[in-house]
Amino acid sequence: MISVAVLGYGTVGSGVVEVIENNNAEVSAKAGEEMHVKYILDLRDFPGDPYEDRVVHDFRVILEDPEVSIVCEVMGGVGAAYQFTRQALEAGKSVCTSNKELVAKHGAELLELARTKNCSYMFEASVGGGIPIIRPINKALTAEKIESIIAILNGTTNYILTKMEKEGADYAQTLKQAQELGYAERNPEADVEGHDACRKVAILSSLMVGKNVDSEKLYTEGITRITPADFEYARAEGMTIKLLATSVGYEDGSILAMVAPTMLSKEHPLAAVNDVYNGVFVTGNMLGDVMFYGKGAGKLPTASAVVSDVVDCARHIGRSSIVCIWDKEEAKLIDKAETEKAFFVRVKAIAKDTVCKLFPGGHFVEAGRSEDCGYITEVMKEKDFAEKCKELGENLLNEIRLA
Amino acid sequence: MISVAVLGYGTVGSGVVEVIENNNAEVSAKAGEEMHVKYILDLRDFPGDPYEDRVVHDFRVILEDPEVSIVCEVMGGVGAAYQFTRQALEAGKSVCTSNKELVAKHGAELLELARTKNCSYMFEASVGGGIPIIRPINKALTAEKIESIIAILNGTTNYILTKMEKEGADYAQTLKQAQELGYAERNPEADVEGHDACRKVAILSSLMVGKNVDSEKLYTEGITRITPADFEYARAEGMTIKLLATSVGYEDGSILAMVAPTMLSKEHPLAAVNDVYNGVFVTGNMLGDVMFYGKGAGKLPTASAVVSDVVDCARHIGRSSIVCIWDKEEAKLIDKAETEKAFFVRVKAIAKDTVCKLFPGGHFVEAGRSEDCGYITEVMKEKDFAEKCKELGENLLNEIRLA
Repeated sequence: MISVAVLGYGTVGSGVVEVIENNNAEVSAKAGEEMHVKYILDLRDFPGDPYEDRVVHDFRVILEDPEVSIVCEVMGGVGAAYQFTRQALEAGKSVCTSNKELVAKHGAELLELARTKNCSYMFEASVGGGIPIIRPINKALTAEKIESIIAILNGTTNYILTKMEKEGADYAQTLKQAQELGYAERNPEADVEGHDACRKVAILSSLMVGKNVDSEKLYTEGITRITPADFEYARAEGMTIKLLATSVGYEDGSILAMVAPTMLSKEHPLAAVNDVYNGVFVTGNMLGDVMFYGKGAGKLPTASAVVSDVVDCARHIGRSSIVCIWDKEEAKLIDKAETEKAFFVRVKAIAKDTVCKLFPGGHFVEAGRSEDCGYITEVMKEKDFAEKCKELGENLLNEIRLA
Repeated sequence: MISVAVLGYGTVGSGVVEVIENNNAEVSAKAGEEMHVKYILDLRDFPGDPYEDRVVHDFRVILEDPEVSIVCEVMGGVGAAYQFTRQALEAGKSVCTSNKELVAKHGAELLELARTKNCSYMFEASVGGGIPIIRPINKALTAEKIESIIAILNGTTNYILTKMEKEGADYAQTLKQAQELGYAERNPEADVEGHDACRKVAILSSLMVGKNVDSEKLYTEGITRITPADFEYARAEGMTIKLLATSVGYEDGSILAMVAPTMLSKEHPLAAVNDVYNGVFVTGNMLGDVMFYGKGAGKLPTASAVVSDVVDCARHIGRSSIVCIWDKEEAKLIDKAETEKAFFVRVKAIAKDTVCKLFPGGHFVEAGRSEDCGYITEVMKEKDFAEKCKELGENLLNEIRLA
């Protein structure tokens, strides 16, 4: 019998209990032993809830119960969640989490602690919700040198951009609809400014290079400046606009990781990742391109990912099932200013001549608009592009990187 | 030091050696120990090959060397490959294979043998080439009851269908081009008649239900009857045509598995899987839909998948790393005649009235063609559809299932 404790009885926490109870036959068969939820830690009581008898308010009850071998930390935050995770690992209990903020901030340290205590720290649900991505990177693409990861990691912004593309709606109006439907938070900043995607790409990048990638050091740009006009030009060019989280590895072990709205060809598999779905496009030096696609959020998909970690831990009681390499040492980050790409610029109609003088290797995009003018530059360094944009001054209406 | 033997120095075999040698740092780090190829078994000699000194002609050399703990069977076929696999497993050596024919035929038996000998039988490369799909199903989607799998599992036919769609070319002409480019075999039957996809879906189905699914009992239809006209109608309806391998689980544990060309909506993620790529779309009862996408064949992608199995085995020397459930007991198969779906029919123009009398709940597809007439039926049982088609006689030009 495997006894599990769930920390936090919110959306994901109640999902974890539901998955373990409803799919008990499948989960227990895969774990090799019967599994049950012994405790649910929450500050609240849940009178009438079918699992109300399992609710406890004191973490020590869980910590001091030798029967509990696996703890699911689905509280969120980096305060109590961090303390409880450390205490559980210190006691040799494996911890499975969906808490991307904590993983991004303390992943390397918690993995090391788990290893020394012969238990595991697992975080499949921290990136891509229900999509298996952490485990495939750690346990399936083991023959590969991963060269790059390009991903749509935030469902809220992908939903907004998909709506804007399909309906020609503007950003503010679409955000409001998304909030009404529950796809966006009342305070949407973490999503729409790209911070959520940034934490996730920092986690993927750390696993890719085996060193710590600090999410706070990554360039992050959100979707708030994207307009229907930008989509008109993208469409005319056979492209779409996605909030892409990218991570590119260099020969010397350094990486360029960032989050930014990006124009990409309609032919790219990520262009077909729409609505609240996520997609992670991985390029390995031997296998070429693979993509993982699915629901990046939601109660049951996220809970399913947490429980897949629980099953993994259950099969490795008394020893660590961690195979990833994520050292505390900081990865060397490339300055994006020195990297090269092409850019889409939208300028006022009066700046038509200026733009083709500034970027003589580029071309206009014909979208049948007279209010403004769309142009795609030649491939150039980010810093040179930024320099030239200064000359456009307030005639520059928007700029979007090309994939 | 982990010593590996490679059986068969053909395309995949030389790829396996290349991946282990070229990505040795990555592979050894993930395996937790240095890995090297000690033997290559082949009937031929390879003078001048960088690894010619490792070539042996007698399998007993490998079998009797206690240093060899992992054998890669990449010979193909169900004769010697089967004998060598059994002998290796009997001797406690793990076997990793890309041989879908052998896995489909003897998977359950070889898995059981490996388990009793505390070693592993692994076959990531047998389905989807470089795409991680076997391992995600076995080790990642462990919290799920998998409800269905819909997949594009054959790169050759997907390449042909993609070309036919994009260029309006006919089947014979496109097949010839594919053969010239090396994307299709000189004898293309196993691919174009769907047998290759059938073996692969039998493997996935066996893992899905945990019982043996005999590939020879599955309905299999190839792509040889698909014409440019069918694509014209599909396009007019916002659809495309793909060779889909499907497996649907029922509540009582029975399944419906088959391979057939299928019209599916352009909005479906599998519709964006083009050229030689494969895609596997899995629906679980908790996480909803996930898709795995990548190169379904080719030397290095396939070899990368074999080596990912080798790494898994290397981490479990002396014990079995098998987590899948695939009993010898035969799965109960559903008779497709009793299942329901809609159908596309293309009939001679003179049968226009007959077709809408036969299928009163359907609708015509307007593609601006006068030679023939496209129609989509109501959802109905396969056997009722077949019965009604008899009345169309030779006026029936083609019929294609809808997804």
